[in-house]
Amino acid sequence: MAENQGLTPRAQDFSAWYNEAIMRAELADYSPVRGCMVIRPNGYAIWELMQRALDDMFKATGHRNAYFPLFIPQSFLQKEAEHVEGFAPEVALVTHAGGKELEEPLVVRPTSETIIYDSFAKWIQSYRDLPLLINQWCNIVRWEMRTRLFLRTAEFLWQEGHTAHATAEEGRAETLRMLEVYRWFYEEHMALPVIPGAKTATERFAGAVETYSVEAMMQDRRALQGGTSHDLGQNFARAFDVTFQDAEGKRDYVWATSWGMSTRTIGALVMAHSDDVGLVLPPRLAPRKAVIVPIWKSDEEMARTVEAGHKLAEALRPAFGPVTVDERDTLRPGGKYTEWEQKGVPVRFEIGPRDLAAGQAVMVARHDRKKTPVPIEGAGRALQDELDRIQSDLFATALARREAATYRIDRWEDLRALFAGEGGFAWCHWCGDAACEKQVQEETKATIRNIPLDREPERGACVCCGRPSEGRVVFALAY
Amino acid sequence: MAENQGLTPRAQDFSAWYNEAIMRAELADYSPVRGCMVIRPNGYAIWELMQRALDDMFKATGHRNAYFPLFIPQSFLQKEAEHVEGFAPEVALVTHAGGKELEEPLVVRPTSETIIYDSFAKWIQSYRDLPLLINQWCNIVRWEMRTRLFLRTAEFLWQEGHTAHATAEEGRAETLRMLEVYRWFYEEHMALPVIPGAKTATERFAGAVETYSVEAMMQDRRALQGGTSHDLGQNFARAFDVTFQDAEGKRDYVWATSWGMSTRTIGALVMAHSDDVGLVLPPRLAPRKAVIVPIWKSDEEMARTVEAGHKLAEALRPAFGPVTVDERDTLRPGGKYTEWEQKGVPVRFEIGPRDLAAGQAVMVARHDRKKTPVPIEGAGRALQDELDRIQSDLFATALARREAATYRIDRWEDLRALFAGEGGFAWCHWCGDAACEKQVQEETKATIRNIPLDREPERGACVCCGRPSEGRVVFALAY
Repeated sequence: MAENQGLTPRAQDFSAWYNEAIMRAELADYSPVRGCMVIRPNGYAIWELMQRALDDMFKATGHRNAYFPLFIPQSFLQKEAEHVEGFAPEVALVTHAGGKELEEPLVVRPTSETIIYDSFAKWIQSYRDLPLLINQWCNIVRWEMRTRLFLRTAEFLWQEGHTAHATAEEGRAETLRMLEVYRWFYEEHMALPVIPGAKTATERFAGAVETYSVEAMMQDRRALQGGTSHDLGQNFARAFDVTFQDAEGKRDYVWATSWGMSTRTIGALVMAHSDDVGLVLPPRLAPRKAVIVPIWKSDEEMARTVEAGHKLAEALRPAFGPVTVDERDTLRPGGKYTEWEQKGVPVRFEIGPRDLAAGQAVMVARHDRKKTPVPIEGAGRALQDELDRIQSDLFATALARREAATYRIDRWEDLRALFAGEGGFAWCHWCGDAACEKQVQEETKATIRNIPLDREPERGACVCCGRPSEGRVVFALAY
Repeated sequence: MAENQGLTPRAQDFSAWYNEAIMRAELADYSPVRGCMVIRPNGYAIWELMQRALDDMFKATGHRNAYFPLFIPQSFLQKEAEHVEGFAPEVALVTHAGGKELEEPLVVRPTSETIIYDSFAKWIQSYRDLPLLINQWCNIVRWEMRTRLFLRTAEFLWQEGHTAHATAEEGRAETLRMLEVYRWFYEEHMALPVIPGAKTATERFAGAVETYSVEAMMQDRRALQGGTSHDLGQNFARAFDVTFQDAEGKRDYVWATSWGMSTRTIGALVMAHSDDVGLVLPPRLAPRKAVIVPIWKSDEEMARTVEAGHKLAEALRPAFGPVTVDERDTLRPGGKYTEWEQKGVPVRFEIGPRDLAAGQAVMVARHDRKKTPVPIEGAGRALQDELDRIQSDLFATALARREAATYRIDRWEDLRALFAGEGGFAWCHWCGDAACEKQVQEETKATIRNIPLDREPERGACVCCGRPSEGRVVFALAY
């Protein structure tokens, strides 16, 4: 892949395009360890912005961060029957350490419920210790051999919230509250509309009473699960004997939740907005909001435009953070434009001698190439307005794209035809039987993404078997 | 350990006191996995403040964060001969994953040089790619069976900086620049004076040309290594074939550095300032700067003092973050004072009915119990001044403590007597021979902490063998 060559177009090979967009923007790289990836600085900076936004919301809703061990005794995983069944096939095991074979192998955490409930059992005595609202930022290992950068890797980074409550109602309210945080994060920061809803029993987290997700549509019309929130009921509390004494002195198991979002979200961000040139980032998750490209022919022009560029950068930095002046003399302006476009910088300012004479710069938006001449003095105001416009444009485009690929489907042949063709989100009636869910998956590869929380009650007939249904669910091919 | 019982005094059993101070303040807990610990929210909040301060400085000096795999192929560790020798005894090995035995065992990272240089070799082509300035925040595993909370655990959290440069001089300058960041962090944030200096060859990082450290004195007169910065020369570049083409087209290996600081620092913070009541935190690393305790006898007084407390808290929060009003009616004021003192909150405000009548609150500093009546209106100004006083008081006390336990020692008997007795920092002449270093250690358990960078040139005789020396080094018992 030569330096200035374009990417494989999305329409031709979405998967190749995705990899190239990531490599060209230097977000990530493959690693010599099969299944693992390296998150490069450009990618990690996006993760830092995601972390900051989510962490602020977690704290604003009363959660505190903590850190639990990477290693979990194998026997812990076995305490919750469904849980071990769900995770056993994909765990990595430490069998030797410090030069000796361990008496009991240690599991590298695939999720931390089991090790955390061991602590909760010690920390929780009475209703006064509840609710206990904990979050952890850490790495997770689930063995995968088919690597896709960000989307499917043996190790990934995430946050996992774990909370304990005195009543079932409080646990359920927490589960939905955090789902709402994820919805808010996706829509306000990722500029990506999502469908919040409940997973079917088949797709539930191993050990949960109810699992909720937010589901987003990618540009190839596939769904990506954007964050999950689990109502664990008393399942883990029973397995780990986490009890509390209520105000009347009665002992009961706590009601628990867990919820998580991972670096997979960076993959969603790429697939949601980027184009055939390269990365397109919503301004709120763009580590660099703007870049300045001076344009010159003579040395004298270079001196003047570069100086003006630095003045502008200086003026923008306090409010917008890092702003680069691209004064390289090894590349022409066009080459610079392409490079910054591939990296997804939302706005560039071009300053040529004629602009300078008029006291202006040309502001160019990455996503639609709209050019706006703006006075250099006070360009910050114009930049902020432009970033706001870009953020809401991207959301509107993603929403329009999803709506154009969303169908109400009532007939089995139409469902088959949809997934044999272009795909999309199919809102269909479903009787609630796992057998129908399975049959659809076997014949179309589409799965029920979720049962939308805000679906309208509507009586109908299951798209698969024709039995009665009380509302529609969303079928789609999924990442 | 009952709720209101005091801690074991430092003078009686420093180690027991340390553990009790941590447990009482709920900074950390033991874990069912031998060698691992749980960092509780009160402890993790300190780590977050440390991270923020360091990360800001790393970024201000041009570094960017990235993330590399947790797992390292065993063969990678073997590429740098000294490196493998240094780390092999303490690694944890993953031998099975995804239900199968792996072809090559994977090492859980004990440090990331080897996996990072594999990427550097791909990313660095020309001098234009240099310097490459990377930092990583992550977990690290070095197998330890004797656990001491924060100080010695099989898993810990840290940051590791890894940089590549075009010249030996730039590499060396970077090594010292980051050592200076650590010195600054210790002195300005931790309120703890340190001695920056070079490690002897014996204590060098496995694979480094030169290792530097900052060394602090704990209250039991032992030294704690606070952060290390390594000049790696071209050792790792050779092992991993990381080369670049210079401006003249000549190829050479890059010059590299690495530097790190870990959650061990939280242990240093506890041992540096805390007292027999519990935690004492320098305000800059205190997650909660102040607490408000209303004092009442009647319900009517309770209503008034609690209301005044909330008003004050409200006024303080924008500038000082979380401020709790302790309105529990299950504890007397004295019990509340003890609890907040054990947790190390730097300042408390007491508000009784008589204070209220005078429009004031009594501000009490945690570290010296100094009481200052302050007007409730404008208490923020008084609080900021008091926090500044506390921060500099703690530094001054730590410095005075270190000076009182620092000795210039020229005779072997005196050195032996010092470490047979109270211990401390012994500035002694040393000939530079590892045999003398070893002999001192065997007979006194003290080691050379470092060769201070700013030591005065002074000719003398080695405290061990009498051969000539050009300056003093610091001997101490160490954590």
